[in-house]
Amino acid sequence: MTATSQKHWTGDPSPLLRVGEGFRLSDVDPDATPGYERGKKSGAEDLAAGAAQFDELQERLFAQSRVQDGSPAVLLVLQAMDSAGKGGIVRHVIGATDPQGVHLTAFKKPTDEELGHDFLWRIEKEVPGPGYIGVFDRSHYEDVLIGRVRGLAPADEIERRYVAINEFENRLAGRGVHLVKVMLHISGDEQKSRLMERLERPDKHWKYNPGDVDERQEWPAYMAAYQHVFDRTSTDAAPWFVVPANAKWYARLAVQALLLDALERIDPQWPTADFDVQAEKARLAAT
Amino acid sequence: MTATSQKHWTGDPSPLLRVGEGFRLSDVDPDATPGYERGKKSGAEDLAAGAAQFDELQERLFAQSRVQDGSPAVLLVLQAMDSAGKGGIVRHVIGATDPQGVHLTAFKKPTDEELGHDFLWRIEKEVPGPGYIGVFDRSHYEDVLIGRVRGLAPADEIERRYVAINEFENRLAGRGVHLVKVMLHISGDEQKSRLMERLERPDKHWKYNPGDVDERQEWPAYMAAYQHVFDRTSTDAAPWFVVPANAKWYARLAVQALLLDALERIDPQWPTADFDVQAEKARLAAT
Repeated sequence: MTATSQKHWTGDPSPLLRVGEGFRLSDVDPDATPGYERGKKSGAEDLAAGAAQFDELQERLFAQSRVQDGSPAVLLVLQAMDSAGKGGIVRHVIGATDPQGVHLTAFKKPTDEELGHDFLWRIEKEVPGPGYIGVFDRSHYEDVLIGRVRGLAPADEIERRYVAINEFENRLAGRGVHLVKVMLHISGDEQKSRLMERLERPDKHWKYNPGDVDERQEWPAYMAAYQHVFDRTSTDAAPWFVVPANAKWYARLAVQALLLDALERIDPQWPTADFDVQAEKARLAAT
Repeated sequence: MTATSQKHWTGDPSPLLRVGEGFRLSDVDPDATPGYERGKKSGAEDLAAGAAQFDELQERLFAQSRVQDGSPAVLLVLQAMDSAGKGGIVRHVIGATDPQGVHLTAFKKPTDEELGHDFLWRIEKEVPGPGYIGVFDRSHYEDVLIGRVRGLAPADEIERRYVAINEFENRLAGRGVHLVKVMLHISGDEQKSRLMERLERPDKHWKYNPGDVDERQEWPAYMAAYQHVFDRTSTDAAPWFVVPANAKWYARLAVQALLLDALERIDPQWPTADFDVQAEKARLAAT
């Protein structure tokens, strides 16, 4: 835990939220706010303070990559049931920094062309380059979540995918992509009230999809599929974090803290000039 | 001029900044703040107020496109000499809205593959889809600016490109892409002081490129090339706007105003549900 970014936490959020040995999703209370006891109002203030830090670290990360070959990147993978708040994370956490340093991809139902390739084909193309903060709104994990729940692929293919995912993520980590994999965890009741709100407000109708109710009816199967994902793919190179998300303000603060932690571990530095500063000053002055 | 977005302006910025018949770039004072007399401090406040409007209009634009086929988009094209503030526009104007509705492309020196294609090949791939706000940080205009100044293409090829650009932009406009083409106009002295600042601050060294001084020495040729661009490509379908940019706060406010104007002309509406709201409420309630 770093003093700068997480001084308002009573416990370091990274280990608190991390999926480790023996983790059971069913033990996580979606209403909880692990490591943070200051409540909603302070949570919003602390989010704003963290945004300034996030913004500076992002700029350093980007700056460093312009000069040093093979610079690191960060990749935030967001997975969740519908309405759990992925969009709010993008808007309120990621949206606090310079869009020029962010590479955001929302993965939808695969196209026919994508289905003609291995499931990681479309993913690989969106891996953030050096210096970028990549965000996957849904990801390759859909292929072992809805893929499993809806039987879109046979069991041995799903099995192959867990192995492929670990190899893929190990490879990314090896070339400097710091993965932060987050599942936003809401309760079934919370989802019901959020979907109902979308139905009650005409300015939210566009966010509602009748298919959401169909998926909702498979809730236990999805939770089991997530548990399998955690069992199989929470590795040292690319750990999972489960963030209780019934309180939106907490989920945002927690994801921000996880990103700050990744950035502080990278500890990006302003690069030194690869040109002669004094000579350039003279050359510029002469114009 | 709409009462909502531009009440702080003494004149409507769109016609004031628009490149029309007989426009001369040399007549534009880069220190001026056309249509706005309230000064820097109020400018920052008005930018924040405009950001909230921009954010709502962006969400409506995006929402509408999720339901209606062939919905409109906005494309902001940013051109300028180095250090004129393109990055600040992206960060402070575009950065005020949801990254999920923005499609940003920074065009660099073309790759060998890109050079093997027509100059519009790489541009076409980045045209924003329905509902998006696209931003081009540099654009196809580089091919008639640096292309002309540095003699990267013969005169008849440059000539062909003006025609191709107008046809291309007409086609985009015809399918609902509202183009807002902006040149940020700074003075040579202002550029000199901004580049010098980059040399004086170690945390800005990464933004400095010795090539910037070489380009700076071609200032008159670039101004002539911009004048040609305006003469040939400021059309009704895709007009140019020249924004005085020595005052960064003014340039941001003015570009925001131009975007608000484009969005208000589109006047995007929350889409009506394409499902039976009451039936969905009952179906959800039963889960």
